[in-house]
Amino acid sequence: MPKQIKKVAITGGTHGNELTGVYLINKFKKNPTLVKRDSFETIFMHTNVGAMHQCTRYVDKDLNRAFIKNDLCNSEKYTYEDILAKNINEKLGPKGAIKTNVDFIVDLHSTTSDMGLSLVIDNDNNLTWQVAAYLKEMVPNLHVFRWRGDTKEVSFVNSITKEGFAIEVGPIPQGVLRADLFFETEKLIGHILDFFEKLNTSKLEKRYKNIEIFDHIKLVDFPRGEDGELNATVHPNLQDNGYYKLSKGDPLFITLDGEIINYEEDEKMYALFINEAAYYEKGFAMCLTKKENIKL
Amino acid sequence: MPKQIKKVAITGGTHGNELTGVYLINKFKKNPTLVKRDSFETIFMHTNVGAMHQCTRYVDKDLNRAFIKNDLCNSEKYTYEDILAKNINEKLGPKGAIKTNVDFIVDLHSTTSDMGLSLVIDNDNNLTWQVAAYLKEMVPNLHVFRWRGDTKEVSFVNSITKEGFAIEVGPIPQGVLRADLFFETEKLIGHILDFFEKLNTSKLEKRYKNIEIFDHIKLVDFPRGEDGELNATVHPNLQDNGYYKLSKGDPLFITLDGEIINYEEDEKMYALFINEAAYYEKGFAMCLTKKENIKL
Repeated sequence: MPKQIKKVAITGGTHGNELTGVYLINKFKKNPTLVKRDSFETIFMHTNVGAMHQCTRYVDKDLNRAFIKNDLCNSEKYTYEDILAKNINEKLGPKGAIKTNVDFIVDLHSTTSDMGLSLVIDNDNNLTWQVAAYLKEMVPNLHVFRWRGDTKEVSFVNSITKEGFAIEVGPIPQGVLRADLFFETEKLIGHILDFFEKLNTSKLEKRYKNIEIFDHIKLVDFPRGEDGELNATVHPNLQDNGYYKLSKGDPLFITLDGEIINYEEDEKMYALFINEAAYYEKGFAMCLTKKENIKL
Repeated sequence: MPKQIKKVAITGGTHGNELTGVYLINKFKKNPTLVKRDSFETIFMHTNVGAMHQCTRYVDKDLNRAFIKNDLCNSEKYTYEDILAKNINEKLGPKGAIKTNVDFIVDLHSTTSDMGLSLVIDNDNNLTWQVAAYLKEMVPNLHVFRWRGDTKEVSFVNSITKEGFAIEVGPIPQGVLRADLFFETEKLIGHILDFFEKLNTSKLEKRYKNIEIFDHIKLVDFPRGEDGELNATVHPNLQDNGYYKLSKGDPLFITLDGEIINYEEDEKMYALFINEAAYYEKGFAMCLTKKENIKL
């Protein structure tokens, strides 16, 4: 674990219609002392102002899949989000450098899926996991999800730095600001910053040795017709039931005609990111995971 | 009440990201017998295919505010939805004619707000209200909301015909298909068609004399800063609580700093369309209504 954290970035509005992050950054802009700690610097920024103004996920492409190392120095990549990614990479990274401009990125998201308060972690670096374990102690209803990706190279905003993660909260419709989850997310950010303050001032009480996580196994799409339209949607048993434990024979989907499609795997798995609006176009109805207690 | 209904239109996808209506029309296209009745013709159509393909509410402007009589014959109105409105008006109307091509329009919507299963009625014509009263008897959890508009002239899709209404179901995030409310809406459509069949074949058991409704009093916006950004959002007491009865002193909003803003009217009112995503840009956080038992 590094001895000192010098600079942390909190980013919001990566998806312009996920208002929890957008308004948390607004709040910090008005009152920066909320995220100030003595031993390190916290910076905060809206990452996709263009999408925020349209209240859409993105303008041209998903910014949260735009941080691919080769693309960041490819002049043929020129869409709105390609350019944004290059700017953000300059400010916070550059990605892959031994010394990046910030040490840790927390990227704020929301989801239409019932994910409660979740961390989405896509790296195996120790500091990231120590923070996660600390947060689970502070916020017992927090879930930790290890994402194995829908792209070859992890290309999230928080992949610019070695250490960091995304926060996902839901269910929240796109374009809606929900008070309860806004304040819960703000509290979680406070705990993250407290962790770094304790780390820097040698006040951490322990080094965590393990953590319970939901480990990405696979993404499952909706049953679709040849035209790509949905033939079925998520079964009511799973709707609003994030981290649902699936056993063979459990209803998974229901067709528009009312026919039930069951979960047919022998192995029990936990479903999450169930019925997330933004994943319709990506081709996922849910993510299947295994619950694991991993060593740190 | 007219003696005969000859043609009914069911329209969906008026807002391209409200998938309940989009997929119900898909279902009827595959199996038209579902909406077939012997004594009249049912037609069904997607109204805004352009917005559906983008999975956005609209392409250029809200189609469900585009049916203003003067605009429909104004060649200077040329945006995507202006042109669509003219086409749809030709097919189903024309609006204002003594004899329109269809007799009754049911327009399918969903909302991020906890509206349950609701009718939104914007005309005072007798057949509309007889259908509504029949539906309330068939579906006891149905709410009936009389909309007094955010525009001078009612300009909804269903305003093309003298008789008709919109169905609103929620809470559903934009871009999400929820099984439970999909099937509930389909059942409601079945009852509407059954009503017309009974009307045409003189099998209606009674003429309804009154109905309980929520009558539009006013629209209330979020507290906002000079830049138009929200300073507060809906208080958790109201969130997920459609048709909430407000008394003086009840929390209404909570600022981003956690300060509570109360309802200050002496008169009790019922709040609905609470925290609907699409109304952020229109400037409404909710609609206040009075519960009335009106004579038909």
